[in-house]
Amino acid sequence: MSKRIGFAGLGLMGGRMARNLLKKGFPLTVWNRSQERCAPLAREGAKVAATPRELAERSDVVVACVADPAAVERLVFAEDGLLSGVRPGFRYLECSTVDPGTTRRVQAALRERGGDALEAPVTGSKNGAENGTLLFMTGGEQAVHDELLPVMMAMGTKAIRCGTMGQGSTVKLIGNSIISLMLQTLCEGIVVGRRAGVSIETILEVVTASGYSSPYFTFKGNAIARRDFEEHFAIDLLVKDQTLMLQQAAALKVPLPGLAAVREVFQSARAQGFGREDICAVIKTLERAAGETA
Amino acid sequence: MSKRIGFAGLGLMGGRMARNLLKKGFPLTVWNRSQERCAPLAREGAKVAATPRELAERSDVVVACVADPAAVERLVFAEDGLLSGVRPGFRYLECSTVDPGTTRRVQAALRERGGDALEAPVTGSKNGAENGTLLFMTGGEQAVHDELLPVMMAMGTKAIRCGTMGQGSTVKLIGNSIISLMLQTLCEGIVVGRRAGVSIETILEVVTASGYSSPYFTFKGNAIARRDFEEHFAIDLLVKDQTLMLQQAAALKVPLPGLAAVREVFQSARAQGFGREDICAVIKTLERAAGETA
Amino acid sequence: MSKRIGFAGLGLMGGRMARNLLKKGFPLTVWNRSQERCAPLAREGAKVAATPRELAERSDVVVACVADPAAVERLVFAEDGLLSGVRPGFRYLECSTVDPGTTRRVQAALRERGGDALEAPVTGSKNGAENGTLLFMTGGEQAVHDELLPVMMAMGTKAIRCGTMGQGSTVKLIGNSIISLMLQTLCEGIVVGRRAGVSIETILEVVTASGYSSPYFTFKGNAIARRDFEEHFAIDLLVKDQTLMLQQAAALKVPLPGLAAVREVFQSARAQGFGREDICAVIKTLERAAGETA
Amino acid sequence: MSKRIGFAGLGLMGGRMARNLLKKGFPLTVWNRSQERCAPLAREGAKVAATPRELAERSDVVVACVADPAAVERLVFAEDGLLSGVRPGFRYLECSTVDPGTTRRVQAALRERGGDALEAPVTGSKNGAENGTLLFMTGGEQAVHDELLPVMMAMGTKAIRCGTMGQGSTVKLIGNSIISLMLQTLCEGIVVGRRAGVSIETILEVVTASGYSSPYFTFKGNAIARRDFEEHFAIDLLVKDQTLMLQQAAALKVPLPGLAAVREVFQSARAQGFGREDICAVIKTLERAAGETA
Repeated sequence: MSKRIGFAGLGLMGGRMARNLLKKGFPLTVWNRSQERCAPLAREGAKVAATPRELAERSDVVVACVADPAAVERLVFAEDGLLSGVRPGFRYLECSTVDPGTTRRVQAALRERGGDALEAPVTGSKNGAENGTLLFMTGGEQAVHDELLPVMMAMGTKAIRCGTMGQGSTVKLIGNSIISLMLQTLCEGIVVGRRAGVSIETILEVVTASGYSSPYFTFKGNAIARRDFEEHFAIDLLVKDQTLMLQQAAALKVPLPGLAAVREVFQSARAQGFGREDICAVIKTLERAAGETA
Repeated sequence: MSKRIGFAGLGLMGGRMARNLLKKGFPLTVWNRSQERCAPLAREGAKVAATPRELAERSDVVVACVADPAAVERLVFAEDGLLSGVRPGFRYLECSTVDPGTTRRVQAALRERGGDALEAPVTGSKNGAENGTLLFMTGGEQAVHDELLPVMMAMGTKAIRCGTMGQGSTVKLIGNSIISLMLQTLCEGIVVGRRAGVSIETILEVVTASGYSSPYFTFKGNAIARRDFEEHFAIDLLVKDQTLMLQQAAALKVPLPGLAAVREVFQSARAQGFGREDICAVIKTLERAAGETA
Repeated sequence: MSKRIGFAGLGLMGGRMARNLLKKGFPLTVWNRSQERCAPLAREGAKVAATPRELAERSDVVVACVADPAAVERLVFAEDGLLSGVRPGFRYLECSTVDPGTTRRVQAALRERGGDALEAPVTGSKNGAENGTLLFMTGGEQAVHDELLPVMMAMGTKAIRCGTMGQGSTVKLIGNSIISLMLQTLCEGIVVGRRAGVSIETILEVVTASGYSSPYFTFKGNAIARRDFEEHFAIDLLVKDQTLMLQQAAALKVPLPGLAAVREVFQSARAQGFGREDICAVIKTLERAAGETA
Repeated sequence: MSKRIGFAGLGLMGGRMARNLLKKGFPLTVWNRSQERCAPLAREGAKVAATPRELAERSDVVVACVADPAAVERLVFAEDGLLSGVRPGFRYLECSTVDPGTTRRVQAALRERGGDALEAPVTGSKNGAENGTLLFMTGGEQAVHDELLPVMMAMGTKAIRCGTMGQGSTVKLIGNSIISLMLQTLCEGIVVGRRAGVSIETILEVVTASGYSSPYFTFKGNAIARRDFEEHFAIDLLVKDQTLMLQQAAALKVPLPGLAAVREVFQSARAQGFGREDICAVIKTLERAAGETA
């Protein structure tokens, strides 16, 4: 019999991930801070919980996909939070991108009540969530990873266990740091190219044919060519992750001169009002810095 | 009948490219500043020219692959330089990575004597030169591109015309700027990961499975995992290209905060004695900055 | 009759500040997390409190000078913390360098119990604390500033009210950001100068004679010339402040490309083991980056 | 009898410096690339030379204050350049800010003809030039420094010999690197302060009272408070010097992470059209980056 799944956080990613669980036949209860987001899934057959506590009580596994460490703290530790509804055997699948400290704290609290957690931040952005092709980077016990694999495979196509609790988050933050510099350098190149009379299309053609090609350059480069900045992954969220990465690196005493420089550019994009647009909108900030009228 | 090819600059890249021309049956004359590098190719059938002028006189097309703009200046404009041997119909294929200003100056000088030039910097590094799988980014007249395509296809698998003279170099510099930030972010991630107990192999597994995968991450990541820093593309040369990119961007009034930060890290690698090692040796500089004994 | 003063935090700065209060005749009680640091002041006439609560109970004004926001949180809000000993009329003088959010939270809690707080971070480092020549940057009510002025003037020579609670901390963080870049550029210049055969002494002579002269350049430049890295202000603490400044700037949506780059250099200094040395020891990190054997 | 002085380059600085020579009674001949700038000084008694060669022929000492290394090259080495008018005993006082390579090349050429040069870049900007209070940083022979001291003292108040040819330029570039970071950090602080409700005046009051005070902060801070961006030292020229400093550092293998980051901000200011405004106009670029409407 299928595990009963609870889903907390029905944003751009979470809503799509929850729908896939429903489609694959999992009995689903959902909770979201602003309850109106629950309605579409309720119409498709999901139950709605009034509080995270109720969500935990009604589920064998709760999957969470919320914005940041503070949101996880509230979800789990607040009065009427998840923790108060946990019983032995309960499982928590943390799909939010947060820092290792947070996931470890959550795991410790769950274990005290006989439950356990697996961190499993995802990559694939909006399309991957929609199509069920996400990649999970897990941290936690191998047994818990194996136990929750069917749940993950309802939302994605691959789950790589990166190590113990915290190490999945670490790898996820590394990944978001990588896309930050990839996007920065692509955009720097596009702005220089344009000034020199070289089109984005030519740059992308060369990149695609080269040894440093990446589907990511194609995906984001094409969006920029169309001036399509609709959110797949919002600048606000990427800056949150860049900041978590810099914090973790500081704690580990690793200087990150590349990421530090690039984060200030994305900060500028937030300041200029592009925080809710897709991360490729950072090109507008570089264009302004280069004196082009926005 | 095959064009007679001259090849100037038999370094890590040029020596391998020249050999492929020879293998494909082009009558080949070679010239190198330090003549001993000509010996292996001479044994395989190439003639040796004493001066760039002689090289030009004996060839229909001269291919150049030298270190930097200063080397191109000497090669072309010095007494006994190429220019003094040029006659109508002569073609110059500039495979060195230099700035657009230099290639334009060379083209103008050749045209005054009835010749013409195509800039065609390459990507693919040592292995691509060895295996004849280079990618050429050309700038110049379409007709000259077409005319020299068979020569390029003896050394590579693809030639993309990026525009007029200078625009091929621009795209090449953009490409080297892209690999600079890709390498920087990969290395920053590897150092953070190691401190957090996550292996390079795990990071590469995730990167490879993700939307931001790239053969470049695999190639350089594996080399770093093996601590194999043998030159495919030397740090000294990449810093030269980063500097040309920053100079061109300055001339075009485009600030490049990402590349500017990253260049100083590679500068540090040069200062620490890694200039002749492969560009992935930049990780050693990041390790030192993070307090690890080198 | 003199106010009874409590002093919490007897580190490099606090110990010296407390001694000046004692010298000026204030009845003094001290508390420090590790109690052995209280002994010298006890011998000079100070009483010793066992807990922050006791410190509050025995004092009209408690002055705090602790390491960071977490230490302030513990000091004030922990069980047996200051807050539990607060009664109407109690005053808290926050001389630690922390973020505006922390000082505002402390003020709000004190006010609920009828007390109030003034933030008053200091500049002047070890010598200023020793000689009683500190400068205070205060935030809070004008009346509280005036009320506590005699206490501040026992430890320093000037107190500038920067505005309401949080604005004193903001100005202090701006100041530490300024010294960060001043030190960075001085050290970059010294390393370049040395390589070019120009001595530190010559550089300092010119700086001193120029319009951009500053006693700070003289002070730190002379220390570097003597290779005297004894702590006046530790790298660990400056990095803490740089991080608080970047966090506040992020909250205010202000990108700080200069400070972001410089913080990573100081982070590297921490990673290389110089965290407890004076901030001018950052030159050792720049020397290593430039390939000099440390 | 007073030496006959020639002055080449009557820009913002040079025009004022030349006038002071005239006022102090030196027989003066002037030359400027666009000759209309010579008219005011001609009315005050200066002769006008048609070419740099003529300027050299009519003078015992030629003082130069031109924009950049390329302008020095033209002035000295062009046909009808200074060099063609040099005879034994001729002296060249290079007050332009250029790279050490350029000043060394000029000196070598002059020596071949029996002349000599002293590099003597200045600090003090427009007001210092106007009031004759410049500071000279010289490089060259001590004897030549002594010989030209009276000429320098007609335009300034102090001349510090930094070493041999090239070392004066090095110290000057270090100085301009220092003011770059001082200005950057001041402006970052002002923008953060404003967002947090702290006025420029408060920040300047604290800076002035602190150990890191500098007349430079007062001078530039007050200009920013008045939104007075009239050129004392233009952004275009400072970026030129930042670039020369980065080039010299690269040649000496010294990474400069601070200056590299800051230069891109000033580059952005140029791109946004502030190149001819005073360097304190860089704050407008930081304000734009922070999302404020310019």
